[in-house]
Amino acid sequence: MIFDAVAAQAPLVQRLLDGLAAIGADPPGITRDAYGHGENAAHALIAGAGQALGMQASLDAGANLRLVWPAEHATAPPLLIGSHLDSVVRGGNFDGAAGVVAGIGAVAALRAAGVAPARDIEVLALRCEEAVWFGLGLIGSRCLLARLPEGALDLRHARTGMTLAESILACGGDPGLLRQGRPLRDPAGLGAYLEIHIEQAPQLVEADRPFALCLANPGNLRHPFIHIAGADAHTGLPHRFRRDAALAGADLALELERLWLAEEAQGRPMAVTIGRFHTMAERHSLTAVAGDFELSLDLRAYDPAHLSALEARLGVIVAEVAARRGVRIALGPRSAAAPGMMDPGLIAALGAAAGRCGLPAPRLNSPGSHDANNFAAAGVPSAMLLVRNQNGSHNPDEAMETPDLMAAITVLAEYMASG
Amino acid sequence: MIFDAVAAQAPLVQRLLDGLAAIGADPPGITRDAYGHGENAAHALIAGAGQALGMQASLDAGANLRLVWPAEHATAPPLLIGSHLDSVVRGGNFDGAAGVVAGIGAVAALRAAGVAPARDIEVLALRCEEAVWFGLGLIGSRCLLARLPEGALDLRHARTGMTLAESILACGGDPGLLRQGRPLRDPAGLGAYLEIHIEQAPQLVEADRPFALCLANPGNLRHPFIHIAGADAHTGLPHRFRRDAALAGADLALELERLWLAEEAQGRPMAVTIGRFHTMAERHSLTAVAGDFELSLDLRAYDPAHLSALEARLGVIVAEVAARRGVRIALGPRSAAAPGMMDPGLIAALGAAAGRCGLPAPRLNSPGSHDANNFAAAGVPSAMLLVRNQNGSHNPDEAMETPDLMAAITVLAEYMASG
Repeated sequence: MIFDAVAAQAPLVQRLLDGLAAIGADPPGITRDAYGHGENAAHALIAGAGQALGMQASLDAGANLRLVWPAEHATAPPLLIGSHLDSVVRGGNFDGAAGVVAGIGAVAALRAAGVAPARDIEVLALRCEEAVWFGLGLIGSRCLLARLPEGALDLRHARTGMTLAESILACGGDPGLLRQGRPLRDPAGLGAYLEIHIEQAPQLVEADRPFALCLANPGNLRHPFIHIAGADAHTGLPHRFRRDAALAGADLALELERLWLAEEAQGRPMAVTIGRFHTMAERHSLTAVAGDFELSLDLRAYDPAHLSALEARLGVIVAEVAARRGVRIALGPRSAAAPGMMDPGLIAALGAAAGRCGLPAPRLNSPGSHDANNFAAAGVPSAMLLVRNQNGSHNPDEAMETPDLMAAITVLAEYMASG
Repeated sequence: MIFDAVAAQAPLVQRLLDGLAAIGADPPGITRDAYGHGENAAHALIAGAGQALGMQASLDAGANLRLVWPAEHATAPPLLIGSHLDSVVRGGNFDGAAGVVAGIGAVAALRAAGVAPARDIEVLALRCEEAVWFGLGLIGSRCLLARLPEGALDLRHARTGMTLAESILACGGDPGLLRQGRPLRDPAGLGAYLEIHIEQAPQLVEADRPFALCLANPGNLRHPFIHIAGADAHTGLPHRFRRDAALAGADLALELERLWLAEEAQGRPMAVTIGRFHTMAERHSLTAVAGDFELSLDLRAYDPAHLSALEARLGVIVAEVAARRGVRIALGPRSAAAPGMMDPGLIAALGAAAGRCGLPAPRLNSPGSHDANNFAAAGVPSAMLLVRNQNGSHNPDEAMETPDLMAAITVLAEYMASG
């Protein structure tokens, strides 16, 4: 029954996805700017779709959109289904938006099937998930759950130059309330948070599966400005005298890669990304040994204890490379984020729902961080469905196929119908 | 006898070194700009010193200074003693200049000792040895021996903007004659070329020896603009899908370093220098896998066959790294210079002269290339004495000690006195 009810909503889902693409059209990609025309128009489109289903629309103090399908006799705290509608600059249409549309699609299917919810169902469009706009991501869920870092409301928008506080105010939110630092909703009063999101990596393409249940979103340890100080030298300097900062950088990078592969071989998933990795442009010479080198490090893992162990290993590796290369390595500023562990009970329930629909539901770690991290960190039982997409995300070539999203919506709707 | 005669010239040697330092004073270093005030004043100082010893001064078409102490009854073709008087910007006082001063010092010692030369002795100050002025080094000896590359006379001076032809003309040379492409002296008519030069590396400091006989100057293979093309990606992309250009660069660099160490362990000296090694600044991101990477490569060796073998190995390593990293590696433009093999007979004769003076004369490969490369390449038997200096060269901290230079002049004078 759910199968057919969801399948009947495919035109609605496609219409909403197409509408969002039209709003964000910025060839060759999609740009829906946070707190700007793109995100605001997308919120209006989704609000209209929810209201057409009889849902009640409202904004919270973070200017997040909340659409409620109230239960007549609620027997449990509300179920939240959320994601975001902003995008990176010239990104794809599906990163974030697919999850909000999925919530609308699931509600539409259940209403059409005559299912009455046992608890309030809320569909959330959370503001500014992408870090490109303020250099800080997951802002809507941070506002909701009082997880904004110190000074965040004074950050400036990369495009408009407005502060975050001004941006939220302009969109109908209440930055004064946010400054009080209390959650806008008591996490203890929220039953569960579910998020559907494209995978952002090709593991489901490789596995030929339309969706997976997410086990965890990664936490990270970041050192954006690692500096290696060796000694500038003439190309004539023999190897034993050199203190080559570039080769020390290469050594460090490959040691971290070896750590990564060894940890994964032991069943401990993680990731190492070195996006900035360079000698000093102003001193480049074909015949000079580099005395200085810089790199960034983003280290991800899915378990807090693992992340701590990796930080200790990083320290050992840095000391070893520095010693054998005769260089000094300064890790510089450090930031960290806790992993977002998904709720085992919710994962089991979603897996059971998938089973009832005859759909295989593999388990997968999310490659990226999501608003679900904030809900999990606040103690709200959270889970995610990751949907297959070609070509990664944050680029115009994102290529989620609507039938894959429909399969995930089927599982979501089946779970919702079960209570 | 030679010992004392040379020792007596220490004040002259020191006076000339101090005079050259005063000419080039550019705190904290020394700048003697090629074809400019620095080099011209240095030439005038040395010309005066030679003329005071009764030597005949003249300029060749390349504006090189030639000081001749003629033999009354020459029994062999002339012996040339040369080096250069220009410096890099804010370099040291001794790179080049020590060798020209040494020639003057040796002539002064022999004349004072009443030794009559068996062949003409020529002291040469060769123009513009440093590559910083025109992006091309060894220019004076190139002019002398018709080894200027195509278009070199149209290169522009980094400081004055004048072409090389204009610069040479302004210093009393004859670029029209140079354009004819014939050697200014018939190499077959030159008996030998000797050059004294600071070592530019700390091997003699380490070995606690004042000087060494040079076996060879390195030739090189250069790829200034190697490009690695991988694929930009989100930090969420698992390792097996990544085509990380930065890690491919790290891999390539460490493979080349391993090659270097393995070759030297097998007794085949060489050097690898990667002065430029970087991701693309305009696309730096903490959370993006680098799709592009660039590096420069300067590969040096002392034997033409070895250099050829290394180029073949480079090709294999590049192909292996590209295959295992899923990237494309374009080596880009290539340039090469042949090694300057020093003459075994001359090395033996200088070694014998050192032995007669009771001075140990270890053998060493030169870390850098010198004007001797061009003489050797033209078929003139060539040799070099490398003098200990602290702190490398091309920096203000060059620290040759005059007694070490005097030891090398002693060997030179003893060799000259023997025929």
